[in-house]
Amino acid sequence: MMGLDDKIERDYQSVPPHGGNLVRAAMEYGLGPRDFLDFSANINPLGPCPSVLEAIKANLWQICHYPDPDCRELKSTLAGHLGVDTRCLLVGNGASELIYLLARVLSFRRVLIPAPTFSEYALAVKAAGGEVNYIFLDPSLGFPFPLEEVLRRLPGVDALFLCNPNNPTGGLIPRRELEALLEAAAAYKVMVIVDEAFMDFVVDPQSHTLLSLTGRNTSLILLYSLTKILAIPGLRLGVLAAQPNVVEALEGARDPWSVNALAQVAGVAGLQEKEYIEAARDMVARERDFLFRELSSLPGLRPFPGAANFLLVDITGTKYAAGELVRRLGCRGILVRNCANFPGLSEGYIRIAVRRREENLRLLEALREVL
Amino acid sequence: MMGLDDKIERDYQSVPPHGGNLVRAAMEYGLGPRDFLDFSANINPLGPCPSVLEAIKANLWQICHYPDPDCRELKSTLAGHLGVDTRCLLVGNGASELIYLLARVLSFRRVLIPAPTFSEYALAVKAAGGEVNYIFLDPSLGFPFPLEEVLRRLPGVDALFLCNPNNPTGGLIPRRELEALLEAAAAYKVMVIVDEAFMDFVVDPQSHTLLSLTGRNTSLILLYSLTKILAIPGLRLGVLAAQPNVVEALEGARDPWSVNALAQVAGVAGLQEKEYIEAARDMVARERDFLFRELSSLPGLRPFPGAANFLLVDITGTKYAAGELVRRLGCRGILVRNCANFPGLSEGYIRIAVRRREENLRLLEALREVL
Repeated sequence: MMGLDDKIERDYQSVPPHGGNLVRAAMEYGLGPRDFLDFSANINPLGPCPSVLEAIKANLWQICHYPDPDCRELKSTLAGHLGVDTRCLLVGNGASELIYLLARVLSFRRVLIPAPTFSEYALAVKAAGGEVNYIFLDPSLGFPFPLEEVLRRLPGVDALFLCNPNNPTGGLIPRRELEALLEAAAAYKVMVIVDEAFMDFVVDPQSHTLLSLTGRNTSLILLYSLTKILAIPGLRLGVLAAQPNVVEALEGARDPWSVNALAQVAGVAGLQEKEYIEAARDMVARERDFLFRELSSLPGLRPFPGAANFLLVDITGTKYAAGELVRRLGCRGILVRNCANFPGLSEGYIRIAVRRREENLRLLEALREVL
Repeated sequence: MMGLDDKIERDYQSVPPHGGNLVRAAMEYGLGPRDFLDFSANINPLGPCPSVLEAIKANLWQICHYPDPDCRELKSTLAGHLGVDTRCLLVGNGASELIYLLARVLSFRRVLIPAPTFSEYALAVKAAGGEVNYIFLDPSLGFPFPLEEVLRRLPGVDALFLCNPNNPTGGLIPRRELEALLEAAAAYKVMVIVDEAFMDFVVDPQSHTLLSLTGRNTSLILLYSLTKILAIPGLRLGVLAAQPNVVEALEGARDPWSVNALAQVAGVAGLQEKEYIEAARDMVARERDFLFRELSSLPGLRPFPGAANFLLVDITGTKYAAGELVRRLGCRGILVRNCANFPGLSEGYIRIAVRRREENLRLLEALREVL
């Protein structure tokens, strides 16, 4: 049997499964974990809100008690913030816990996944013994949502996973297309899981989110993440909104204390900060436009217009494959996401998070040097 | 369908599923969560080590990055502390995540559980679709481990769950009985899961732990918790030790970031504190003896001798059932565990954690008032 160290060494040769792995990057590039500017994870560029850090410090005493298994205070805060009844909410140890939980408990036999998209949907379905059917979006058209093909293939599956806006393309599915889809899904009894992890970074999220439908649509499960907008991926905090019977089934099948006490504290404190959330949204919109323009002007780079806090970039016009470009930036202390391991993409793509202006300028400078 | 609020109200009428739920207690007794002396959760009475709190504060910056999915630094620290190869270790979001994970991935059809014991084993097996067969320990003999009956019933099951020392009885299974059991289990291809969550509080744990066997015994899965000894249940941190192929199978079936960044920091810092761990063990031994003697002298109370940081107490000699006694103490700001919902126990038992001398004296005073 191969040893763990061999396995890890081998993994390091290949593409990391996700962005944001500073420990791996530190080992690979011989720098400290804090020496990097990380454009490989899609986190609010303002960083954690000062009031969230204060709340954590003031509530450190809570670590010596079990967390509230019912997340009562956080659920009640979320209900107000999202406009969803507490009966329809389930809090998770990151949205990824909830993805694995629902794939397992609802035991989908066959799911449909438009790709490229966040890879954990497929991994979770496969870990639960299900089969994944991909529909590949067309890069030559800029990865538009393939409504017709999705509708056509709905009858053969139990569930459909959508990421909106989509990671890593940034594409936003038009509201009327989602509504058509939900109607068809209800008719075919297909569960539609819509992951809105990056919805907070979209301009006018209220007109795009499906949150208001979760209480009455039996075919819809909505995923939401506080990890990204509150910049607390290290603490883990995700939310699921669905019909109460779905929430109860999921809740009954997992361990009671999965959401740690400090994540609950951070969520309650962070959701008060409406101005901070809006400021982050405004800054991301401004910097996304800036980065899009600047990247477009660099030789060989072709960014796709995106609605979230990251941009997918076609690099086939450069002399580098993604692995090599990522490595050359990594040596300069700049991490971007190699997209080669997204089903539906290839060595011709990288993903870049939108950060603050001075940080974006440092990325652009490094790109100019490398290209 | 019944609403969540109805459900919670109903739950509050019944026995809480676990100890340590301060939010529930605060609602029930009209006090603040910090107003209680909590004897209902079995946590190191010294509280979190100051160096652990310092490490968390110094590493708060980590919350805005994803946690290391490989837990590399913590695993390497654990390997040294436990004397187990890193290939044999899996870190979890509390031991409870690992219990649910293994029940699901190893998909046991029928398991044997000597009871009373920690209720999550049975809940996890049932959530994964398995069947639970209990062997009930004899209260009139002081809940001794029923080796003969366990051996007799091994051939009919896939797995056996043991808690050693056992929660809530405090019973320690003699080493030679465990070895006989492991030999028989190997012959019948029964997986034996031994939960050593409270082993750190036992006098001379080295002579009782099975850690040294995990690398070479294919029938053994060992669970270990850092939540209890480091007093960090709010952060969640559990460990599983088994053959590398079992570890790989489990790791491949869960979400990658389940162990949050601050739990990893706390684990690395806490495991350096060997003197603190020994001081906790010594204090618990002293206070356990003190509490045992004092409880025995109170009218109607009969504590069972236990090896861990808690004592099971038969209260059938008092005029109260457990629910009423727990309530009367709760109104005085003192929480103890009602054991009525442990399969194999009844309204005739409570469980009391061993705490510091001045806290134990306050409990004894409250008990004298109530009785």
